[in-house]
Amino acid sequence: MRRLVSDDAWIAAMVDVELALVQAQARLGIVPASAAQGIARAVRTYRFDADALAQAARGAANPVVVFVAELHRVVAAVDPAAADYVHRGSTSQDILDTATMLIAARAVTAIIDDLDGVIDALARLARAHRDTPIAGRTLGMHAVPTTFGAKVAVWMQGLLDARDRLNQVAASGLPVQLGGAAGTYASYVECARISDSDLATAASEEIYERLTTEFATELALTAAPVPWQTVRTPIADLATALAVTSGALGKFAVDVITQSRTEIAEVFEPAAAGRGESSAMPQKRNPVLATLIRSAAVQVPALASILLGAMLAEDERPAGAWHAEWQPLRECLLLVGGSAHTAVELAEGLTADGARMKSNLATTQGQVLAERLALRLAPLLGKEAAKKVLQVAAFEAQQSGRSFSEVLAEDSAVRTHLSEQEITELLRPETYLGAAAAFVDRVLNRL
Amino acid sequence: MRRLVSDDAWIAAMVDVELALVQAQARLGIVPASAAQGIARAVRTYRFDADALAQAARGAANPVVVFVAELHRVVAAVDPAAADYVHRGSTSQDILDTATMLIAARAVTAIIDDLDGVIDALARLARAHRDTPIAGRTLGMHAVPTTFGAKVAVWMQGLLDARDRLNQVAASGLPVQLGGAAGTYASYVECARISDSDLATAASEEIYERLTTEFATELALTAAPVPWQTVRTPIADLATALAVTSGALGKFAVDVITQSRTEIAEVFEPAAAGRGESSAMPQKRNPVLATLIRSAAVQVPALASILLGAMLAEDERPAGAWHAEWQPLRECLLLVGGSAHTAVELAEGLTADGARMKSNLATTQGQVLAERLALRLAPLLGKEAAKKVLQVAAFEAQQSGRSFSEVLAEDSAVRTHLSEQEITELLRPETYLGAAAAFVDRVLNRL
Amino acid sequence: MRRLVSDDAWIAAMVDVELALVQAQARLGIVPASAAQGIARAVRTYRFDADALAQAARGAANPVVVFVAELHRVVAAVDPAAADYVHRGSTSQDILDTATMLIAARAVTAIIDDLDGVIDALARLARAHRDTPIAGRTLGMHAVPTTFGAKVAVWMQGLLDARDRLNQVAASGLPVQLGGAAGTYASYVECARISDSDLATAASEEIYERLTTEFATELALTAAPVPWQTVRTPIADLATALAVTSGALGKFAVDVITQSRTEIAEVFEPAAAGRGESSAMPQKRNPVLATLIRSAAVQVPALASILLGAMLAEDERPAGAWHAEWQPLRECLLLVGGSAHTAVELAEGLTADGARMKSNLATTQGQVLAERLALRLAPLLGKEAAKKVLQVAAFEAQQSGRSFSEVLAEDSAVRTHLSEQEITELLRPETYLGAAAAFVDRVLNRL
Amino acid sequence: MRRLVSDDAWIAAMVDVELALVQAQARLGIVPASAAQGIARAVRTYRFDADALAQAARGAANPVVVFVAELHRVVAAVDPAAADYVHRGSTSQDILDTATMLIAARAVTAIIDDLDGVIDALARLARAHRDTPIAGRTLGMHAVPTTFGAKVAVWMQGLLDARDRLNQVAASGLPVQLGGAAGTYASYVECARISDSDLATAASEEIYERLTTEFATELALTAAPVPWQTVRTPIADLATALAVTSGALGKFAVDVITQSRTEIAEVFEPAAAGRGESSAMPQKRNPVLATLIRSAAVQVPALASILLGAMLAEDERPAGAWHAEWQPLRECLLLVGGSAHTAVELAEGLTADGARMKSNLATTQGQVLAERLALRLAPLLGKEAAKKVLQVAAFEAQQSGRSFSEVLAEDSAVRTHLSEQEITELLRPETYLGAAAAFVDRVLNRL
Repeated sequence: MRRLVSDDAWIAAMVDVELALVQAQARLGIVPASAAQGIARAVRTYRFDADALAQAARGAANPVVVFVAELHRVVAAVDPAAADYVHRGSTSQDILDTATMLIAARAVTAIIDDLDGVIDALARLARAHRDTPIAGRTLGMHAVPTTFGAKVAVWMQGLLDARDRLNQVAASGLPVQLGGAAGTYASYVECARISDSDLATAASEEIYERLTTEFATELALTAAPVPWQTVRTPIADLATALAVTSGALGKFAVDVITQSRTEIAEVFEPAAAGRGESSAMPQKRNPVLATLIRSAAVQVPALASILLGAMLAEDERPAGAWHAEWQPLRECLLLVGGSAHTAVELAEGLTADGARMKSNLATTQGQVLAERLALRLAPLLGKEAAKKVLQVAAFEAQQSGRSFSEVLAEDSAVRTHLSEQEITELLRPETYLGAAAAFVDRVLNRL
Repeated sequence: MRRLVSDDAWIAAMVDVELALVQAQARLGIVPASAAQGIARAVRTYRFDADALAQAARGAANPVVVFVAELHRVVAAVDPAAADYVHRGSTSQDILDTATMLIAARAVTAIIDDLDGVIDALARLARAHRDTPIAGRTLGMHAVPTTFGAKVAVWMQGLLDARDRLNQVAASGLPVQLGGAAGTYASYVECARISDSDLATAASEEIYERLTTEFATELALTAAPVPWQTVRTPIADLATALAVTSGALGKFAVDVITQSRTEIAEVFEPAAAGRGESSAMPQKRNPVLATLIRSAAVQVPALASILLGAMLAEDERPAGAWHAEWQPLRECLLLVGGSAHTAVELAEGLTADGARMKSNLATTQGQVLAERLALRLAPLLGKEAAKKVLQVAAFEAQQSGRSFSEVLAEDSAVRTHLSEQEITELLRPETYLGAAAAFVDRVLNRL
Repeated sequence: MRRLVSDDAWIAAMVDVELALVQAQARLGIVPASAAQGIARAVRTYRFDADALAQAARGAANPVVVFVAELHRVVAAVDPAAADYVHRGSTSQDILDTATMLIAARAVTAIIDDLDGVIDALARLARAHRDTPIAGRTLGMHAVPTTFGAKVAVWMQGLLDARDRLNQVAASGLPVQLGGAAGTYASYVECARISDSDLATAASEEIYERLTTEFATELALTAAPVPWQTVRTPIADLATALAVTSGALGKFAVDVITQSRTEIAEVFEPAAAGRGESSAMPQKRNPVLATLIRSAAVQVPALASILLGAMLAEDERPAGAWHAEWQPLRECLLLVGGSAHTAVELAEGLTADGARMKSNLATTQGQVLAERLALRLAPLLGKEAAKKVLQVAAFEAQQSGRSFSEVLAEDSAVRTHLSEQEITELLRPETYLGAAAAFVDRVLNRL
Repeated sequence: MRRLVSDDAWIAAMVDVELALVQAQARLGIVPASAAQGIARAVRTYRFDADALAQAARGAANPVVVFVAELHRVVAAVDPAAADYVHRGSTSQDILDTATMLIAARAVTAIIDDLDGVIDALARLARAHRDTPIAGRTLGMHAVPTTFGAKVAVWMQGLLDARDRLNQVAASGLPVQLGGAAGTYASYVECARISDSDLATAASEEIYERLTTEFATELALTAAPVPWQTVRTPIADLATALAVTSGALGKFAVDVITQSRTEIAEVFEPAAAGRGESSAMPQKRNPVLATLIRSAAVQVPALASILLGAMLAEDERPAGAWHAEWQPLRECLLLVGGSAHTAVELAEGLTADGARMKSNLATTQGQVLAERLALRLAPLLGKEAAKKVLQVAAFEAQQSGRSFSEVLAEDSAVRTHLSEQEITELLRPETYLGAAAAFVDRVLNRL
């Protein structure tokens, strides 16, 4: 992912975009075919210096101006006639926005691939532990039982939602931007008008349609019905799909971290040479994969908020808002891409200890089933009375360290309605799992 | 909007949800029909004290526990037998999450209605000014001409995108939540098991399906295939759709603010008694509607980031993340709802001064068309040479205050290729509007 | 806190500010003494309708314009001559910014008081558990031992830092704002010039100095050397001090939540009637106080970011940035004020179970001291070899469930240098606490 | 700045920190002097591969573990005996946190230097334009006059506040971190205990005091009274000082952007070859420096919010929160450092056009002084009546395009009290500047 969103990748994408533009124009007869060939030939072997460009870019507040100047020089050295057709009719934003979509398309594809891997691995885990009882925890405290499979299905649900949103973005949310300096297409129209193309006399709209479609086809991106220069919905959609992905991965991670705790020890990250090591403590096996994912997940929402804020793009190109998109978007791709990749390894190698889950579930000696008793006793004792009896019993059990069933069996009100055996049976977690297993099946059915 | 998201509205929604639950349970025979009737009768006239509930709510870190206690008291006073069926089998989160979806459904509907109004008004404006030339501005500086209609169409584009996203949320993104304490549905299943219902012996999955569908139908919300207790995609989707809406409204607002500036004066907010007044300056007509919208738009992204961050909901109910959703979500609805409502008034009453747009466009005496000359001269002089000639001429025109055509006409290189008349014609903005008008039509076609 | 930042509180503060202004002006002879008295008399019994004002406020995009209009009416009904001196020479921002500082001063004082309470309670806890061993945990895993007192001292450290920052804000960071419409003081100067005051002929600077000082004295706020109309440092400082406080409280809360977990159970929130109850599960004692604090702490940073963003206040009063401050600032005060108040109860009632800390510390049967062995063995075996030996032993102990000392004692390399007794002694946590107790003392010394 | 916060800079800082640690230990006799020399000799010429380290770092979720492993190898190759004293007693966080403080110290120094440059340049501008009248603008509309010098002084005020905060951080807010794995210092104490140092028998507190002081002295950082491992105040203070700086720079930038607008044209960015160029429009001179600064300023608050959120550092080292600090902090330093540097150039080269300011001020033909008339007429006509008369006149002047004085002179109520000449005199901006010039002087006095 670091490679996909590097400075070099951005420059390569800008080269691709300039090439696609001139090739589209050449195909429509707006520029000479030889110009497109000359430009293609010139860039084939040239290597732009990312650092130098970044330095120089400050002069125009965007990298395209200096990039185009250098591209012009490079082409002129090889084919002077072609050089005049570099960036023909174009503007910085068309190049950079389209290059961004190209980068995004590649990155999103990689992220979806990794999500596929995570989801597949979790599906195996969910199937294997569909019926493994575990303590459901709310506000950190044992609540009622669930199954580990159901927990894994919850992770999957979020990830499946995220994948849906990324797929939607990949399918139709990444359009080329082609609008000229103020989004009117006037410059591209002008170039067509003064060319030998049959488009020279076409309506502006047709020129837009044909050239943009050709351009989009070159790049395997979509063509929007109108330019989106200061309508930043594609960026916002991309940002929010990434944030939803990050949140879904983060949910997975925080649960792994909790369940890895020394006192809980229900799951373990995959072991690998050097993995999870401490620089000081030989016994340590830290949940480092989950930590990296969580670390990303607490950063992405704020970065997404910058991108959402950049929708306030004043005029026909804003002085700052547009420029504020580049680095946060790159960071979002990097963080989410890195997390998704890490999550594959985490999901594939996660070890689950069903026996430990069971023994943890027994920690409260039956109190984790108190809700069930409350539901049974409410019609018999009245809801409030039932709750009171159970709270008193739970308190007594907590203080004395005795089992919940034992304490309850001593309560005459309870015993009026339930035998000792019935109490014991009602407090068995395996029989109070509701539709947990069915939920696992339903989530697996989404695959 | 303030009314739709008030404390009272939230309480009313919780009442609706508790009623819908018991009615669904009654319809399926899980609780006695009389219980549902008793509860419905009891709440019909009772008025909960929002402040008192808010105070007491701190004890359980959520308002449902005390709300249910009071509801129980209220029902018990009227129909003691029914009271035991209040909140039967339920948990705080089921009630609050579903109430939130109910509130959101109402608020989103209102916002969409207002967006309709904004879009309709802007459509009239775009049609009227489809061909009105205006300076396209980038980084605050005149760039090339566009039309005011095209600017309005850009606002519309963003708003149409936003409306699509809100419609999608309204159509399928607001599911009821029904899962019980740990999302397993065990408590609802248990209640069915010990009831006289024909569901007593049904599979857990069927109980889930039937009860949830009944519950969702009561509330006119959707039923999710599985509970979403700690899969906060519905909240994230809602938050991001609101943020996109806020951004689209904000884009409209920042342009109105800029174009209202004393030196620009191309548009004016609608006048109304007391509107836009200053407490000190009698001459003032401030762009207050746009200011309010922009003020909202700079707040919403950060609030949305809190909601995206809350996706990291650990365990089966997190200790804090869930609780951190309520106020930011309410604020988002309030800000976006208020903005959308304000925007109707702004769009309907916005006055555009075409003559002023024209005179502003003439400020640079033709330089705003320099790009066009560059495109014309590039094939004749070479791209670099053409640019240089034009930069020198522009500089000279800026220094001397003379018109661009006059200065250009003195340049021998230019005059070799273009007559004075051709230069003048090429510098007429009306003939360099590209596909601006076609873009207006295309956006209007989205209606 | 809810009361201190309510709409009513803001109106009351605006009344205080308008009164302070006219009284300051009267004292300097700029307005008649009778005017100040008339205004004071008129507002004494009048009760503004907050909802009505909020509604009407949208017309001017700020509440002051309509507030002043109503204030004028109220005074005119009682003392028509005085009414002309309402808001004399003033502007909305002067009133609202100063009212905000007044609200902030009251809220910050309340927060500091609560922090005092939290810190005192924690100091008692730190003293009591200065030497109580507990597992130090990193990335959720047992690392090396520390003391519970040292953990508490860490909480205190953050809170003491936060209190310092709030004290600094309270002492000098809350200045009145008095600058007139564009921050030049021209209107106040003009009023002095046309008055009978001896300031009528004074230099503008002297008028600024005398009137602002008088005004600030009335309100017990500080007087800034120049107005801060669009220099929002006071708001930024306040926001960041609140965010630091929220973060320090949040650190306390997340540790309480972790240590409250059913499997860890080292601390318990104070019990109180209804506190920590679940609506469904009778056995539950949720860490609700810590949950509320954490919920606030994950919201405040984003709200603070809005306030920091509002520093980009263009011109002499921005169209939106200023308006975007009000609600986030109020929320910050509310969240931090509520958290600080909650934290008092949490700190005062927190129960710590030293025995459980000890038994948790023993979970790994000595591995938590592996670092110490590594330090001892490194000079003897070489660092890498020592680490390897210990990792192997830790792995073996984990797999076999045997104690670390037992496994180590079987290692010949280890035994060459250490006797069984030495190993056992080195693995006693009580003897590897470093300067933990001294750190407790040092933090207590900051009180 | 990019160099100061690069991956290489971070590695160099980690080398510095490890060296400082071993040298401090050697000086106190805790490790052999030869070990410190050996390590120093080994790193002198070795060049770490940043990319390779970054890759490998994922295994431990922090870069220190692999860095130390490589450092160990490097030293072992040169001086095997010394290698065992690499990272002696230390932990990842001590190294990374201290390296971060070192980086921050260097970056903050550079930023302060640049702020000095900005402030000096602005001081010259403020002095030169102390009395140049210009329209004060609120909500984008002409309000009352001010001076350009006063506007510049407002920029200075924010920047002086920011510099104060950065100076405070630089002076005492950047402490070394030295605490060992769980912040108890146990490992450093242990190393001392088993050494030949006279500290072998010292109290733990003394070992902390002496070693930490020595370590801090080596690095020219401060020594904190206790470790700050999970008390992230230094990071929070740094983040907020940077955000305040960014906000102050951003305020400067947004005003430059507005005043550069084609229709306003009061200021111009410095010209330089290639600066402000468009890739398409030859006439363009974009305010690119201000755009870059503003672009940074809209990103920094969200990044700071991540750092404030990271204060919720659970346990003795959090699983994610700590890791989430690195990149946002680096970005903050980069953005603020880059902005400050850019701002020097902007401030030094900014051209102000006083004549244009004057002509813009005349745009409303006197209405910008309406407030003054209101203040004059209020005691004569009553406040409400005066306001009404002036609003009617302003409306009439706006509609008819006539001057405000002309319209006012026709109003009989006004003419009862003021002669035509008096009206004209009252509407002269130069005589209604309040204390603007004095405020300039006061801000200059802060230098």
